[in-house]
Amino acid sequence: MTTRAIAPGSVLGIVGGGQLGRMIALAAANHGLKVHVYAPDADSPAFDVAARTTCAAYDDEAALAAFAASVDVVTYEFENIPRATAEVLARHAPLHPNADALATTQDRLSEKEFINRLGIPTAPFQAVDTPDDLARALDVIGLPAVLKTRRFGYDGKGQRMIREPFEGDRNAIFAEFGGAPLILEGFVPFEREVSVVAARAADGSFAAFDLCENEHRNHTLAFTRVPAQGVSPETAEEAIRIARSIADALDYVGVLAVEMFLVREGGERLVVNEIAPRVHNSGHWTIEGALSSQFEQHVRAVCGWPLGSAARTGGLPCEMENLIGDQVDAWRDLLAEPGAHLHLYGKGESRPGRKMGHVTRLKV
Amino acid sequence: MTTRAIAPGSVLGIVGGGQLGRMIALAAANHGLKVHVYAPDADSPAFDVAARTTCAAYDDEAALAAFAASVDVVTYEFENIPRATAEVLARHAPLHPNADALATTQDRLSEKEFINRLGIPTAPFQAVDTPDDLARALDVIGLPAVLKTRRFGYDGKGQRMIREPFEGDRNAIFAEFGGAPLILEGFVPFEREVSVVAARAADGSFAAFDLCENEHRNHTLAFTRVPAQGVSPETAEEAIRIARSIADALDYVGVLAVEMFLVREGGERLVVNEIAPRVHNSGHWTIEGALSSQFEQHVRAVCGWPLGSAARTGGLPCEMENLIGDQVDAWRDLLAEPGAHLHLYGKGESRPGRKMGHVTRLKV
Repeated sequence: MTTRAIAPGSVLGIVGGGQLGRMIALAAANHGLKVHVYAPDADSPAFDVAARTTCAAYDDEAALAAFAASVDVVTYEFENIPRATAEVLARHAPLHPNADALATTQDRLSEKEFINRLGIPTAPFQAVDTPDDLARALDVIGLPAVLKTRRFGYDGKGQRMIREPFEGDRNAIFAEFGGAPLILEGFVPFEREVSVVAARAADGSFAAFDLCENEHRNHTLAFTRVPAQGVSPETAEEAIRIARSIADALDYVGVLAVEMFLVREGGERLVVNEIAPRVHNSGHWTIEGALSSQFEQHVRAVCGWPLGSAARTGGLPCEMENLIGDQVDAWRDLLAEPGAHLHLYGKGESRPGRKMGHVTRLKV
Repeated sequence: MTTRAIAPGSVLGIVGGGQLGRMIALAAANHGLKVHVYAPDADSPAFDVAARTTCAAYDDEAALAAFAASVDVVTYEFENIPRATAEVLARHAPLHPNADALATTQDRLSEKEFINRLGIPTAPFQAVDTPDDLARALDVIGLPAVLKTRRFGYDGKGQRMIREPFEGDRNAIFAEFGGAPLILEGFVPFEREVSVVAARAADGSFAAFDLCENEHRNHTLAFTRVPAQGVSPETAEEAIRIARSIADALDYVGVLAVEMFLVREGGERLVVNEIAPRVHNSGHWTIEGALSSQFEQHVRAVCGWPLGSAARTGGLPCEMENLIGDQVDAWRDLLAEPGAHLHLYGKGESRPGRKMGHVTRLKV
């Protein structure tokens, strides 16, 4: 289906029902759109704020087709949608970001090959499909290195650090991953982790939020601080150039995030870690911290509307803290904290590691 | 039902499905609440963002009881709920604001008597129940005067200015209003219209937004500007004291608005026009213009949570413009205007006089 601007009152379809879909839905409602959410879990947080819902599996072609036929444009909140699903959707409604962008970024191997082809540095990497591949890859990459599943990894799931030669049995390591296609990546000795969250519209216009600095704990984002500290203006500009060249090459429409390592050794430079073809946790601060939030920008882009301003609210620095697992139990204290903006995702149960909400603080 | 704090994940019931209910629902979702909206119209804008909906009449006692029994706390988006409806609701769930506040403010006569009892000035007024009452009231009040229905008026509906003695036939004038109980109010020679939008919590804590200046066109709010211009700091403080004493006297929980006239003759002073026991159009600027929006404050208050900060974002002046009728057709230009925050209510049809959305501009 071809791209065209849709009017307020139209229906935005969102595939995926987690907090990202929920926050896209809230932004869409604010602009007078009706939202139809497709997700397999009956208790999906995004269902609670949608005009219409479809509860069905991601491989239910009939349900996908009916869903896409009922909406004016489709987007998604996560990158682990099977390509076949994306293609079914795209036959019935304009799909943004496009299926190629999804396919390129949902596999760590094709993603890194794509990034390198643009002349943008990543960690060194080797495909690993067999235990013998692992031996060869370790020879090429050296140590330390990180063995990862090529697909469906998030928040540190599906990865293993290898620090010592011959650590464990190669066959056993390989078996741990269940025979899934793997990638071995050289470890990047980074000083800090940064990300660019940016929107690109169908006409090629582009609006990046200021460079974010991300602090992870237990492989999960804990804090985002904006603007990133200890980064030269030239490097911050380079980060945004990198994100734009990636978005342009993907003919991307919507919000994307590019996670990067800031490396100090050999001169301050950036190494791209991964691309998220969607709104991103490191962009949650934009709800209060920027003139147009990442969710609004995503809605604007996928609807064919002009992008809004990505400038920071009042030019203020900003910090976003994730509320993970039982951290959400502090909700009452956070509500009482002057100037703290609390967001809760309406998830029933706070399991360890589960993102339950976040809090944003503008530094006045 | 007694008041207690409810936890995120609880269900907030909202009676009324217009844009105010919709924006309360969006704020509630942002804090992890589930929303159940009760409204008689199937195409109510608030239905599109609610986890659960009941489409039934305001006098359907069985539906009201089932609705209230299914939620943890009930609030409403407009003051024209029959007292009987409020009492049915309050038997099954905590109702905020309370039924007495509703009854006092939904009748212009009881409202003005209540305000005067607090020592707060209003326009002079007389009850008018018969054509003879009208003659007597005109003698007492003088001209010009405004004849209004005591209940169910909004946006200038149900009122008529009387400028000349014996203008028209008194019986005919009375008949125009269909025999409804009326009130005759003396015309206040005001310089400008201002309002206080404020939240009061069950513990008596109170947070007022800065004084708003309101410009009406065709009896409908067109612009709100904050802070109000041409008002001395003492008068602005007095406005907030007035709002607080009204809220305290009503044992009010939630957001209320107090509309006032600023009168210059005889020294700068305030005359209360009316009380809205709900979130208010003159508070829409707070979504971006204040640290906690009026909708968030209302949710906080009715849930028994601490109130947030009502300070203006970055201390910036702010302007809200209503999009009425076909003004909404400018949506594309407004989306392209740098820094303009567009809100659309998802209403299908833009009829003349219908509030379709609003746009907020922070004055940087």
